[in-house]
Amino acid sequence: MDRRAVLFGSATAALLAGLDRPDAAAATATSSPPPVAARPLPAYAGWKDASALIVHSSATIETRRDALGTSAVTPVERLYVRNNLPAPDASILNDRDAWKLSVEGVGRPGVLTLRELRSLGLATVPMVLQCSGNGRGFFPGKPPGTPWMVGAAGCVIWSGVPVRAVVAALGGVVRGASFMTGTGGEALPAGIDPQSVIVERSVPLAAMADALLAWELNGAPVPLAHGGPLRLVVPGYAGVNSIKYINRLAFSAQESTARIMSHGYRISPAGAQGDPSQPSVQQMSVKSWVSFPGPGPVPAGVVQVHGLAFGGVRAVKRVDVSIDGGISWRKASFVGPDLGRYAWRPFVLPVRLEPGQYRMTSRATDAAGNVQPRERVENAAGYNNTSWLDHVVETTVT
Amino acid sequence: MDRRAVLFGSATAALLAGLDRPDAAAATATSSPPPVAARPLPAYAGWKDASALIVHSSATIETRRDALGTSAVTPVERLYVRNNLPAPDASILNDRDAWKLSVEGVGRPGVLTLRELRSLGLATVPMVLQCSGNGRGFFPGKPPGTPWMVGAAGCVIWSGVPVRAVVAALGGVVRGASFMTGTGGEALPAGIDPQSVIVERSVPLAAMADALLAWELNGAPVPLAHGGPLRLVVPGYAGVNSIKYINRLAFSAQESTARIMSHGYRISPAGAQGDPSQPSVQQMSVKSWVSFPGPGPVPAGVVQVHGLAFGGVRAVKRVDVSIDGGISWRKASFVGPDLGRYAWRPFVLPVRLEPGQYRMTSRATDAAGNVQPRERVENAAGYNNTSWLDHVVETTVT
Repeated sequence: MDRRAVLFGSATAALLAGLDRPDAAAATATSSPPPVAARPLPAYAGWKDASALIVHSSATIETRRDALGTSAVTPVERLYVRNNLPAPDASILNDRDAWKLSVEGVGRPGVLTLRELRSLGLATVPMVLQCSGNGRGFFPGKPPGTPWMVGAAGCVIWSGVPVRAVVAALGGVVRGASFMTGTGGEALPAGIDPQSVIVERSVPLAAMADALLAWELNGAPVPLAHGGPLRLVVPGYAGVNSIKYINRLAFSAQESTARIMSHGYRISPAGAQGDPSQPSVQQMSVKSWVSFPGPGPVPAGVVQVHGLAFGGVRAVKRVDVSIDGGISWRKASFVGPDLGRYAWRPFVLPVRLEPGQYRMTSRATDAAGNVQPRERVENAAGYNNTSWLDHVVETTVT
Repeated sequence: MDRRAVLFGSATAALLAGLDRPDAAAATATSSPPPVAARPLPAYAGWKDASALIVHSSATIETRRDALGTSAVTPVERLYVRNNLPAPDASILNDRDAWKLSVEGVGRPGVLTLRELRSLGLATVPMVLQCSGNGRGFFPGKPPGTPWMVGAAGCVIWSGVPVRAVVAALGGVVRGASFMTGTGGEALPAGIDPQSVIVERSVPLAAMADALLAWELNGAPVPLAHGGPLRLVVPGYAGVNSIKYINRLAFSAQESTARIMSHGYRISPAGAQGDPSQPSVQQMSVKSWVSFPGPGPVPAGVVQVHGLAFGGVRAVKRVDVSIDGGISWRKASFVGPDLGRYAWRPFVLPVRLEPGQYRMTSRATDAAGNVQPRERVENAAGYNNTSWLDHVVETTVT
């Protein structure tokens, strides 16, 4: 079954073919280097660091597990890419300040340019950006979609204007609104129902509190591949909710009826199709993994076992590490600064390793006491995999 | 008078010619874009974002004032470069783990590979990296050296092993040591006294507390242009003390006798030559500047005046902004996360501006109550310019 046919109908699916077709070699569940015959980077992401990336398709590019770094912030050259439609033409970046955003469902609806948005406020938020399918590659049933391992995630710093400042300047949200909806500015294929392909997502109104309309990513203007000139970023929510090339922001009583909202990105029972009765992919949960050592072989001696941990919507508070596949655990230490509740934190545990085989993994706990689970929650599309068992790395020490 | 002749003697100066020869156009004190006929990036830094940079020479590259960003962390593609000798051949990066560091003045002196260093610990420090000559371009007397404006500075995140962990593993510092000395691994010109050109700097032993031997910069292996595979980073100290390509770390009772230490980077009276009796360029002081708006013209209305502030060795605690050249001040707000005492913080002040001329500047205060001064401290080489008056931008609002 082609997942695109499920989500979008078969006519649309044909138009989108190739956007999300995984590389057969990369689809193998492994943290080893990509094959020599790796796909080249697509043109709109050609400036990225190919040595750090696995190119699944022109719209799905993953960071290697050993390339996510220990410095808390993921450099943009190494950040994963996942586009639901082809990126707009790069000419939209020629005059960033002229980009227009329609704001609806507020006291004084209207169109604001990016230049006008810049006058309304300035805020910065470090946050984990993670595709809801990150970890799909560990599902044994091979759900349709890109078999991401750990690298459809990064921790980045966005700057822009708080959505709440924009809303305040426009007279506040209309009475009765329960959702905030962002619409992407990608060109839509002609001849088909726009609702079947448009990138439009709704989140609960409460998510507005920390959301930004962002024009800067890690200290530079947002690149096209990451949604420039303007992206809605919703901290703590799965990446699909952070709308690239946003040209419409609306507040309403009902969520969007676009197919990507109503049927796509739903937590469906295995084998079932998505529908509006099922939970949508929204708030992220506590998760971690070991980045080093990988499969090895690693020389015996003291090894600084390290990885990354985040809480999703809550801060991460603790990480434990196991070198025996979860039989025993030891508390790890966080490394470097705390960038806030939405960011990830590198962690480290020094361990003396004799020659042999080890099963490395980690288990994070968030500020509310939620513990990363042993098992994944099975679902048709392979979303939200936070299982520490799935993230075990088999390491050889010599 | 050629500064190189002063620092190194005239024979050596001839060998180094071209390393630090400023571009005549870039030497003009301005925050406008560089001239169309800008110098190209040198090969070892050819991967950088030329649109964000002013290339003074092959060894001196500055970030534009309007390109330093608001996200707290400076992306490496935009980070300034200042090399005192030509960078080593890029082949030193072919096997990073094989890089060797000699550690002397400890209980068990010896040579460690980068692979061995990785086993001794992992820590991360966000810090302002700033050339001691940053702001030299504002000195009216045009001291010799690159006329940096504000962009010989960035805030970056280093990862590596704490120096104190390395020292502990080697039996501690020898009795009587007062200095920590790093030596760079650049190739030295043949036929001249190595002491006259070698990049070797000493800092007080106390600076060891937060120093790292770093292999990662902003989440990726340290590039050649920034000292990879291994750099000593000394948070709170001027950039020259963070030794690139470090191959020797020594603890001793006396500071280095290398000319770059004994006579270079000294705070000398105007017109005088550097000598060991004068203060060396070490701990940084509280400083800030406005990044936006620049000269304009800027449309009238509310403007989010923003810039960057840091405390040097102490945390920055407060920033005030003036739009009238320092006659009146208003307290600005910090933007985004606090990355720690050695990092800079973006700040913002919303101001309604009518058409006219404005003189934008900022004045920071550190945690000990030290206030950024109105005036620079005159010195022969134009070091340590923290004057808020010098950093005024004349802005036209229409």
